[in-house]
Amino acid sequence: MQPVNLGLIGCGTVGTGVARLLLERRQLLVERTGIPLVLKYVADLDHQTDRGITFPPGVFIDDAWTVVNDPAVDIVIEMIGGTGIARELIMAAIANGKQVVTANKALLASQGNALMQSAAAAGVDLAYEASVGGCMPIVKSLREALVANDIHAMVGILNGTCNYILSQITESGLPFDTALSQAQANGYAEADPTLDIEGIDTAHKLAILTALAFGMRINLDDIYIEGITAITPLDIQFARDFGYRIKLLAICKNHGASVEARVHPAMIPEKNILSHVSGSLNAITVSGHAAQDLFLSGRGAGMLPTASAVLSDIVDLARNLRCGGTGRVPLMGYQPDRIKPLPVLPMSEIVSHYYIRFAVQDRPGVLAAIAGILGDNAISIQSVQQKDRKTNGWVPIVMLTHHAKEAYIQKALKEIGALEVVGPAPMLIRIEDDNAQD
Amino acid sequence: MQPVNLGLIGCGTVGTGVARLLLERRQLLVERTGIPLVLKYVADLDHQTDRGITFPPGVFIDDAWTVVNDPAVDIVIEMIGGTGIARELIMAAIANGKQVVTANKALLASQGNALMQSAAAAGVDLAYEASVGGCMPIVKSLREALVANDIHAMVGILNGTCNYILSQITESGLPFDTALSQAQANGYAEADPTLDIEGIDTAHKLAILTALAFGMRINLDDIYIEGITAITPLDIQFARDFGYRIKLLAICKNHGASVEARVHPAMIPEKNILSHVSGSLNAITVSGHAAQDLFLSGRGAGMLPTASAVLSDIVDLARNLRCGGTGRVPLMGYQPDRIKPLPVLPMSEIVSHYYIRFAVQDRPGVLAAIAGILGDNAISIQSVQQKDRKTNGWVPIVMLTHHAKEAYIQKALKEIGALEVVGPAPMLIRIEDDNAQD
Repeated sequence: MQPVNLGLIGCGTVGTGVARLLLERRQLLVERTGIPLVLKYVADLDHQTDRGITFPPGVFIDDAWTVVNDPAVDIVIEMIGGTGIARELIMAAIANGKQVVTANKALLASQGNALMQSAAAAGVDLAYEASVGGCMPIVKSLREALVANDIHAMVGILNGTCNYILSQITESGLPFDTALSQAQANGYAEADPTLDIEGIDTAHKLAILTALAFGMRINLDDIYIEGITAITPLDIQFARDFGYRIKLLAICKNHGASVEARVHPAMIPEKNILSHVSGSLNAITVSGHAAQDLFLSGRGAGMLPTASAVLSDIVDLARNLRCGGTGRVPLMGYQPDRIKPLPVLPMSEIVSHYYIRFAVQDRPGVLAAIAGILGDNAISIQSVQQKDRKTNGWVPIVMLTHHAKEAYIQKALKEIGALEVVGPAPMLIRIEDDNAQD
Repeated sequence: MQPVNLGLIGCGTVGTGVARLLLERRQLLVERTGIPLVLKYVADLDHQTDRGITFPPGVFIDDAWTVVNDPAVDIVIEMIGGTGIARELIMAAIANGKQVVTANKALLASQGNALMQSAAAAGVDLAYEASVGGCMPIVKSLREALVANDIHAMVGILNGTCNYILSQITESGLPFDTALSQAQANGYAEADPTLDIEGIDTAHKLAILTALAFGMRINLDDIYIEGITAITPLDIQFARDFGYRIKLLAICKNHGASVEARVHPAMIPEKNILSHVSGSLNAITVSGHAAQDLFLSGRGAGMLPTASAVLSDIVDLARNLRCGGTGRVPLMGYQPDRIKPLPVLPMSEIVSHYYIRFAVQDRPGVLAAIAGILGDNAISIQSVQQKDRKTNGWVPIVMLTHHAKEAYIQKALKEIGALEVVGPAPMLIRIEDDNAQD
């Protein structure tokens, strides 16, 4: 069969993995696809790093624009990242009628709607499996495997750095800062970990998945985002006492006329298989009306796991080029004219179970005062736990609530925090437990 | 876009689910695919059962041959099951140039090579996602998502009946026969459960997956098959003491020039996520050289979960028909001329860790006699446990071995079983634990 020519832009960690798979697994790929995949260009300014690859002469070049402008290139693989030059190169590739593969979640989350529109108008495919969940085929599952399902909800662990840190705190009881330092020392967290630990990277991925699942536009701005920096070993210990584990979750739910989309730490029961996803792994449960719960788990980052997903996209596009054409699967899972303007519920409107930890003075009447305020705000308590775990002279008191509205919880916390006998900044962690009492 | 006409043969449980999804989710499907999917025929002899569906006039017919012979039908969906008439209908559909979707694992495991050859020769696609693992996209993952991976191994729980029964024994301590009766009463096991509990259904699925993953012909006959009927609550309790759970596993491993493919109960550590797959769920871990471990879990049977996978196939084929043509993805994941004749290792050649439980007379020297025979057969003991759990006057003694060859284990067990102080029929359960000491 006629070869498909590939141009790779950006040869960092994942780009190197893509080049390695293309060169080292050339025979496997042709045995499986029947299509010779030719790595025509690898564009990167860094010629010094030893990538452990011997490129054929003329392949490794400086100029990314050569890749997007050479008429011989069929598929452009953007592995630069960021929202600046990457966007320009992708737009140029689209304008030149090339198929595009990217893993750039930040770009898709912030400007994906415009990019998809341009690609659809130009009649080219823009593939992005590796933008979410590393090697897990979550985009493929939503666009293809679950095509006949109304998707009700998704709950995912989509950031390996956060999951690694939370797993470390759970296993070793270390405070957050120490666990973060260890994660950095072991290569599981960046020098500047903000995007990961503040939940922003997770929100990028959730924005993409929510749009795909529910047939709506990508809407990053309306996603509620809360990171893991406030989680303490004490909360993890309390969680365990209640049969829960704490994970940073990406959650979206479809209510028909509106959706929920939120990123925050949450307690999940030990019998939820997500609670057993530890270390730097990613995982997601997709709830469809027909399939019920489909659960995927795998490496969410790293050179070869992410490259594995990029290759899945490259092969899909190559197969499209050689067996028909583009547009076989609509880019965002729905025909463009069927994408709906579904609003994301404000966080104050959501309903959840809650874990609340107060630091209180150990004297009579405190519990009654707190319970009174909760009651006044229509919040019903499911259980209370008070153990003699003194922190800074205060005694922690923990409450689990029945279903309550976030707005009421926040109002009650403010009122309770103003009590003289209650320490500042109560800790609030939402509970995702389908089997908890309403 | 021009509609694609579908003909469904067999309207039992899964067939009904397929019809329901096609009719009740007609709008969703067109929003996602842009292709009107028209259910032209549903062929079934049973007109009495209320399926809760109102078919348009002329759709529900008796004669399956009308479906495969009407030139207007684009895709034939075979949901009859069995290896007789189903095979004839599929062959006729192929001969008539129709695309085919089936969930018929028994047929594919026994005659899949010939069917695939016929389909390839006729230039039609034969899709079978629903034949393995219900709603889990395992076929799609192997043929598409993991296309750039050398697959090293797969370990799966592929039979919901067995997993339900083993979960019941684990949770309630019931003996096998009682757990089976309860499973039958609750609709989780057939009146004749042989195919399930003897591991045969699991082997059908493993035969398909092994061929797909390793690029070899389907080879059911050489798969080692052992069911779950001998598993006792005592073994499950011992397993728990060692930090293991017992599951019926489908295992295949690629050794390059040969493969392993076997179905048997096995102990897996509690930190293996497969051990947390309980009830009637299915799951599989696929180990690829790039992706590392990809884990899928979901409903492996049932009306709508299985129909969800059938719809995935129908949409794939419809997209192929409208956007290019057939043969986009080779039927068994590799180009037909690249499928290798890889032999399956005889069971005697495999190497594993083992759990062995003997019933012994409680007198001095027994352990020495057993250990001596194991040592003579080059089997090294990792740990021994003897508790006073008398069964029928005998005392159970349990040993875990280091890596040992199956042939030596079987020889040693025969010799030990012949000792006067040892009861008949020692219990042998293989251990799948990557972290166990060699």
